[in-house]
Amino acid sequence: MTGYYAYQTGPLGPGSDSIVKDPKHRLWDHTTSKHSKATTMSAPTALDAACIFCKIIKGEIPSFKLIETKYSYAFLDIQPTAEGHALIIPKYHGAKLHDIPDEFLTDAMPIAKRLAKAMKLDTYNILQNNGKIAHQEVDHVHFHLIPKRDEKTGLIVGWPAQESDFEKLGKLHKELLAELEGSD
Amino acid sequence: MTGYYAYQTGPLGPGSDSIVKDPKHRLWDHTTSKHSKATTMSAPTALDAACIFCKIIKGEIPSFKLIETKYSYAFLDIQPTAEGHALIIPKYHGAKLHDIPDEFLTDAMPIAKRLAKAMKLDTYNILQNNGKIAHQEVDHVHFHLIPKRDEKTGLIVGWPAQESDFEKLGKLHKELLAELEGSD
Repeated sequence: MTGYYAYQTGPLGPGSDSIVKDPKHRLWDHTTSKHSKATTMSAPTALDAACIFCKIIKGEIPSFKLIETKYSYAFLDIQPTAEGHALIIPKYHGAKLHDIPDEFLTDAMPIAKRLAKAMKLDTYNILQNNGKIAHQEVDHVHFHLIPKRDEKTGLIVGWPAQESDFEKLGKLHKELLAELEGSD
Repeated sequence: MTGYYAYQTGPLGPGSDSIVKDPKHRLWDHTTSKHSKATTMSAPTALDAACIFCKIIKGEIPSFKLIETKYSYAFLDIQPTAEGHALIIPKYHGAKLHDIPDEFLTDAMPIAKRLAKAMKLDTYNILQNNGKIAHQEVDHVHFHLIPKRDEKTGLIVGWPAQESDFEKLGKLHKELLAELEGSD
C-alpha cells in the first residue's frame, strides 16, 4: 500500500494522462440508475489538502477512476492483491468509518455491487479497515473490493473464532442495548 | 461459524427468552435518526424458509439482536473472533452482495457506524465475504463488524500485494470502463 505514495513522484504510465482529462467523467445517480448528464464532477466537500486520497478525488494525483458519484470515488488499487482490486472512497475526509456522515456511507455498497458485476465476479471480499492494527494504511476511509479467484491471490482471512459463551454474550448484549438506546 | 447451527438445537442460554419476546424491538429510521414508534417489525420480504439468517430475521431462531431497521437486522455473532463481533444482514435473502437490491445495501454501513459508536470502538474491520473461497460460511449476505483491539483477537489480514504494473492496470481500466458504460 506504500505504492500510493508513488503517485506523488511519477506518472501512472501509458495512457494515464487520459484518465484525468477524460471528458466522460460522468456522475452516477443511484436514484435513477443513470449517469447524470453533467460532464464535470460536483465540488468535493470536506477534503484534506494533505491527504493522498483527497488529492485523487480532486484530480491532483491521477488514478484509474472507475465510478464517481456525488458522494464517492472508485478506482483501481495500484498495488492490487488480485487483478481488479478496487477502492471506493467517500468524497469526505475522515480516517474511520464512524467519522463519515451517513449520506457518504450509504453510497459505497451499491458501487461495490456495480463494480463486482462489471468484473463478472462471483467470489470476492469487501473490506474496510479502521486503524493501523486493523491493517489501515491510508487515513481516509476506503472500502476494498478484492476479487478472490484462488487461494494465493486476494485477501487471506485469519479467523481466531472463540467458543460460544452465552452468559458473556447476554451481558454484552444488555450493555449494548443500553448504549444504543442512549444514542437516540 | 458452524455455531450458527447450534441455534437450531438449543436455546441461547440465560436470558435468551427475553431476546425474542422483548417488546422494545423498535425500528431505526435513518431519515429521522430516531426509532420509529412501531413496536413490531415490518414484514420481512424475500426470505428463504431454509436459510438460518432468514429464520433469525423472522424470530424463528433467537438472536442477540442489536439494531433492526426496515431493511436490515444486526446481532451479535455467537462465535465471535473478538468481543462485540456483530453481523449486519439485509432482510432480503441473497447469497452474494451483487444479489441484493440497492435499498438494502445502502442501509448496512450507517448501522455499522452506530454499532462502532455504541461499542466505543476506534480500531475495527468491516468485512463481507462472497463465496466459500472468500471465507463465506452462511449463504445470506452478512457484513461483519469485527473489533480489532489487539493482534490476537479479531480479523487476521493476509495481504499478498503485487507490484504495480501500470500497463496491465491501464488495459484493465479501459476494459472495465467499457463494461461500466454498458451497464447504464
